[in-house]
Amino acid sequence: MELFFDPDDDRSAIRQLYEQIRDAILDGRLTAGDRLLPTRGVAADLGLARSTITEAYGRLTAEGYVEGRAGGGSVVAERLVAYPDSEMPAALTPTPLAASLRAYDPAPEARARFDLRAGRVDAGLFPVAAWRRCQLAALRRAPGQYSDPAGSTALRTALAHWMAASRGVTVTPEQIVVTSGTSHAIDLVARVLLEPGDVVAVEEPGYPPVRELLRAHRLDVAGVPVDRHGIVVDAIPPAARLVCVTPSHQYPLGVLLGRQRRRDLLRWARRADAAIIEDDYDSEFRHTPGPLEPLHRLDRDGRVIYVGTFSKTLSPAIRTGFMAAPHTLIPALTAARQIVDWCPPATTQQALTLFLNDGHLSRHLHRARAVYTQRHTRLHHELRQRLPAGYRLLPADAGLHLAVVGPNTPPDPDLRHRAAARGVLLTSLRRSYQQHPTASFLLGFGALPTGRVAPAVAALTEAL
Amino acid sequence: MELFFDPDDDRSAIRQLYEQIRDAILDGRLTAGDRLLPTRGVAADLGLARSTITEAYGRLTAEGYVEGRAGGGSVVAERLVAYPDSEMPAALTPTPLAASLRAYDPAPEARARFDLRAGRVDAGLFPVAAWRRCQLAALRRAPGQYSDPAGSTALRTALAHWMAASRGVTVTPEQIVVTSGTSHAIDLVARVLLEPGDVVAVEEPGYPPVRELLRAHRLDVAGVPVDRHGIVVDAIPPAARLVCVTPSHQYPLGVLLGRQRRRDLLRWARRADAAIIEDDYDSEFRHTPGPLEPLHRLDRDGRVIYVGTFSKTLSPAIRTGFMAAPHTLIPALTAARQIVDWCPPATTQQALTLFLNDGHLSRHLHRARAVYTQRHTRLHHELRQRLPAGYRLLPADAGLHLAVVGPNTPPDPDLRHRAAARGVLLTSLRRSYQQHPTASFLLGFGALPTGRVAPAVAALTEAL
Repeated sequence: MELFFDPDDDRSAIRQLYEQIRDAILDGRLTAGDRLLPTRGVAADLGLARSTITEAYGRLTAEGYVEGRAGGGSVVAERLVAYPDSEMPAALTPTPLAASLRAYDPAPEARARFDLRAGRVDAGLFPVAAWRRCQLAALRRAPGQYSDPAGSTALRTALAHWMAASRGVTVTPEQIVVTSGTSHAIDLVARVLLEPGDVVAVEEPGYPPVRELLRAHRLDVAGVPVDRHGIVVDAIPPAARLVCVTPSHQYPLGVLLGRQRRRDLLRWARRADAAIIEDDYDSEFRHTPGPLEPLHRLDRDGRVIYVGTFSKTLSPAIRTGFMAAPHTLIPALTAARQIVDWCPPATTQQALTLFLNDGHLSRHLHRARAVYTQRHTRLHHELRQRLPAGYRLLPADAGLHLAVVGPNTPPDPDLRHRAAARGVLLTSLRRSYQQHPTASFLLGFGALPTGRVAPAVAALTEAL
Repeated sequence: MELFFDPDDDRSAIRQLYEQIRDAILDGRLTAGDRLLPTRGVAADLGLARSTITEAYGRLTAEGYVEGRAGGGSVVAERLVAYPDSEMPAALTPTPLAASLRAYDPAPEARARFDLRAGRVDAGLFPVAAWRRCQLAALRRAPGQYSDPAGSTALRTALAHWMAASRGVTVTPEQIVVTSGTSHAIDLVARVLLEPGDVVAVEEPGYPPVRELLRAHRLDVAGVPVDRHGIVVDAIPPAARLVCVTPSHQYPLGVLLGRQRRRDLLRWARRADAAIIEDDYDSEFRHTPGPLEPLHRLDRDGRVIYVGTFSKTLSPAIRTGFMAAPHTLIPALTAARQIVDWCPPATTQQALTLFLNDGHLSRHLHRARAVYTQRHTRLHHELRQRLPAGYRLLPADAGLHLAVVGPNTPPDPDLRHRAAARGVLLTSLRRSYQQHPTASFLLGFGALPTGRVAPAVAALTEAL
């Protein structure tokens, strides 16, 4: 603890020191056994006579806050102190818009037998050893200074190769911006491309955090219906400046954006002079043979901003994603990232570069895909067998979740709680709709071992 | 590389495969020696006969793109291909505001003998071994799922202890939000507290990235003059909703916000019902005995949001900072962080928690402070001896840079280049002023070994 001395203060130096230490003990910043700073050092530090410090310490000792120790020096005496809970008045209030953002919901995993929420991955599949080796190699050097906000050249080059090899997306490293994940990429695009009040189109149902994020940018967020071929292009508002889509595995319904729809969407964007964000969040996990070609490959005039993430392929806790954008946007995206949070962390960038270049990601995906496909098949099978009448399972060829559409009654607000009471966590789709929600939900199988699929479905059907 | 097959395509399956691979080779996605996928796997993947794949590969071999390998399999033939530089048309243009952000300036350190830019730290002082041990311990487990956007409870608790011990700032762990650095904290505060058009006050001269960041939020950013006691409280516009200050070591001038000014500022904020951001970016490095008490300690009604960073104490490349805010703001700050980039990375949080709790940061600062103080003294001495007439060195008791005020002529746009030509990188203060800049600059000694101070100053004075 640092001590302060204010020569202009009415209180004596002794009193000032005494009160600072006493307060620190009373509110728990110093606890039993903590050693007080040596009097000589404090005196030199504050430019006071050593006797002043000794006197202050003596007063604390006299009052029982502090005790002398055999080897010399003073330590805080044994007492029980409550952890400080400072009372700060409510002088600062969030704006109505900020207050309307949904508060963070701490994950209740501790109590759940089956975590079937969407977006979970199996931490047990994480390639701990390989990742650790790559991190270790990166940690050989000090992390260094601020660096390129768009990411290191080495990582962007590795990502360009990876995108080409795994998704057939051809871009130069200069077109890539490393981000802290999908939302971070969309946030940067919104910052550089849109003005408050601009119309943006999102899928309805869609991914609630992206809608919230765009709303927080004071944009006019229009929900566009999704049918079994994906987003209904004819329903996109003509004024939309940007459309966010999930072509390979629609979130949440799981449909694939149809071939004709893709052409329609690109044609629409050209006519309307709009940009498209292709959010390719989990298509690395496809469960059937056949193409899952990114929309970006069909784009002939650079309107599609491709957004990828390692949240599903590796772990959400790594907080790394990337986007590929037209050259024209890169300087502004880079400048916007720099003013907000400068650059990606150095060690993660170096580790991920090694991880990609040494082929660890391909190998990990090869293994993980086999496991997830088995779970997908199993969950699909169990649900088809057991879902009660009125509930319909939607087909999905990729990703780590399945969608179940409930009866066309108003959504059942208690379903999530009823399921939780039976140990099942699921993702309700209520928040995925801006209007007319149905009683639908997602079942994520990312963190659900294959052997536990049947009991999970049994517990779920009870809740339904 | 993933291959696609479109049954609706006019071209035959063989032609489609042939063209995809040929194009990948022509634009460098596949390079000499790369192995083509085994025909059996591709056939199974795409639901095609194996002979179709064999035929496509055969055509590529016949045309010289691919060659058979002794052990079986096909590899890309030796050829020189240029790296693809795809030509994307300029269909997407940044907004005028985004386009006006200053573009990233890649650091020219490779060419410089003396890197005296502000904000540099000595990577050689970084406690590589201790940090590596903490990271290793954190890497024992998989990084896991999404977690609390405000940061882990363990890290927030460690930070509360650290702030209390090192700066005398008493807050509960719940009041702390872990960020990716100072700007990230200010970005979150602007998101939750301000509306476009709101007036915010910054110091003039000040830290350009913060001004740019606030401007990017469409705020009305007012520069308030700084004199030798710090920000001139009487000059803060009455309409200001937020004031950003650097009380312990004003950026860039280095002055300490005077005792009376602190009281005036807090009184002003109460009258105006405004919030204050205290940016305490480098006060851990103080070079004289005596108090450097945070403004937060004097705040009696919870108006001061305290912002700290590990960019100077450890490394900017770690990308971790924190803020302590009134309880009333925490839910909105947490929600805002969640929609943008969810949460801090797990491994960094765990490693930093260990690093703080095991006392490594205190020990590192103890060592680093001794080194930096020596450099500070030396640079101060050299500059006082050698600065040409008209240049004035400003006193500074803390931090990692000194400010030099040039002659009151218009700023010299070529100074930075003249210095660079002599191997000296410095930080011009031109961008720190919105109006009336003078020919001033900063000399950072963070990355300048003590033994190199004298030659650096010699090279600098030549440039002046």
